[in-house]
Amino acid sequence: MYQFDRETQIQVMDGQPVGAHVHPSYNIGHNPNGGYLMAVGAAAIRQLHPAHPDPLSVTVHYLRPGQGGHDCRIEAQLLRTGKSMSNGRATLIQEDKPRIEVMAAFGDLSQAEPAQLRIAPPDMPTPEQCIGRSGEAQGVDLPITGPLDIRLHPEQASPNGGRPEALVSGYIRFRDGRPPDPLSLLLFSDAFPPAIFGLLGMVGWVPTLELTVQVRRRPAPGWIQTQFRTLDLGGGMMVEDGWLWDSQGELVAQSRQLAMLLRKPGA
Amino acid sequence: MYQFDRETQIQVMDGQPVGAHVHPSYNIGHNPNGGYLMAVGAAAIRQLHPAHPDPLSVTVHYLRPGQGGHDCRIEAQLLRTGKSMSNGRATLIQEDKPRIEVMAAFGDLSQAEPAQLRIAPPDMPTPEQCIGRSGEAQGVDLPITGPLDIRLHPEQASPNGGRPEALVSGYIRFRDGRPPDPLSLLLFSDAFPPAIFGLLGMVGWVPTLELTVQVRRRPAPGWIQTQFRTLDLGGGMMVEDGWLWDSQGELVAQSRQLAMLLRKPGA
Repeated sequence: MYQFDRETQIQVMDGQPVGAHVHPSYNIGHNPNGGYLMAVGAAAIRQLHPAHPDPLSVTVHYLRPGQGGHDCRIEAQLLRTGKSMSNGRATLIQEDKPRIEVMAAFGDLSQAEPAQLRIAPPDMPTPEQCIGRSGEAQGVDLPITGPLDIRLHPEQASPNGGRPEALVSGYIRFRDGRPPDPLSLLLFSDAFPPAIFGLLGMVGWVPTLELTVQVRRRPAPGWIQTQFRTLDLGGGMMVEDGWLWDSQGELVAQSRQLAMLLRKPGA
Repeated sequence: MYQFDRETQIQVMDGQPVGAHVHPSYNIGHNPNGGYLMAVGAAAIRQLHPAHPDPLSVTVHYLRPGQGGHDCRIEAQLLRTGKSMSNGRATLIQEDKPRIEVMAAFGDLSQAEPAQLRIAPPDMPTPEQCIGRSGEAQGVDLPITGPLDIRLHPEQASPNGGRPEALVSGYIRFRDGRPPDPLSLLLFSDAFPPAIFGLLGMVGWVPTLELTVQVRRRPAPGWIQTQFRTLDLGGGMMVEDGWLWDSQGELVAQSRQLAMLLRKPGA
């Protein structure tokens, strides 16, 4: 069993997801990564309707930071199940406080058809020419780079600003060889440094308020290529859009998050 | 009191939103418009935390069509309330069946600052040069065009396909003079014909599975200018992105929906 599968395991009682262990393996600093918490929440909802394995659309509201290394209680509810799709919601609770609220639609993406309208991946250096994401560059501990090999475009790897756009591109995969699947795309959609750092520098802490991921197909094995971009920043909040492509160049997911920009004193 | 305010009124008992009347005024054919149902759900959640009036991010999953002209029961829950933001969820129920599930973050957008990164509106003909959305053109009854004045770019008004892109642009406002506000942007974000019709023609029924709207500022009075675009269609589903600007040219909301493409027999 691969690490990510072990670390998104859900405790089930009488068919109902009731809990999980929040592993610290995907922490950013002291807090579990938002994409990891989203994957745990989606894995819980999936238990409610085993016939529909693939997340199609998942939204998380981040209520409070999670606590890596501790159990969480899960309250989950099937909202509807039909022939082609199921919908559910879940709350992840630690120390009696809700940490995230997740809403998800699941279906079956096993019948991949050619896309009729297609967002093509941008030209990119190879993964070998890219630069590994490092905590040193950002001045923060990044346990997430243990299980995940995260590579940044060599011209977008510095978080120190000065570039013309709030844009970050790269590649991502599990270091233990686990192939990408729809659940892991939720994690991958929130594993890169904020695009805004490239434009403005490390202006502060950028907590995600809400993240939505649409998974469009099951990914082929290999690297996932990514791009994240912020075009809309104001009122202390920003919208960051993301695109994820598989090794065949097919768009496998889109993401969008609303995040706050909490400026560092003096920044 | 304006019609939209009357038609998004929430019945409250002991501080808890418990019900509403789903008006048929915003129907598309026989079904209430998804943006209208979203506004009703958000109005219910707003009752849970009066200090935070403005929706910042709202996601709806559409479980079953709503029933215009009938009451709905509402089950709502405050997830968290803090100094700058509150989060809540709500289920709208008719005939004992959940119709939509809504999750929303609310805050206070009264302090509008200049945007630091800005998505500018595209060049457009004036509203007077645009063409009113009509049910005749789409072969469907559009009660929604009663309370709403919806104008389409003259080159994008025909739903019969043949254009190079899945793109529709226009303007929208209330006919009774109600100024736009954050709640009404939820309605406006789902009131235009599917962008895909411009490219492919009226290929079928396009039910929304999930809609997320980020409201970025309170709009200035006047027309709301809009653009909707689909770049990603495949596997029987599509992603449609939307942008809404106020009469000052400021981006006031972004939207994204995942919709199914149910082909008409013979189409």
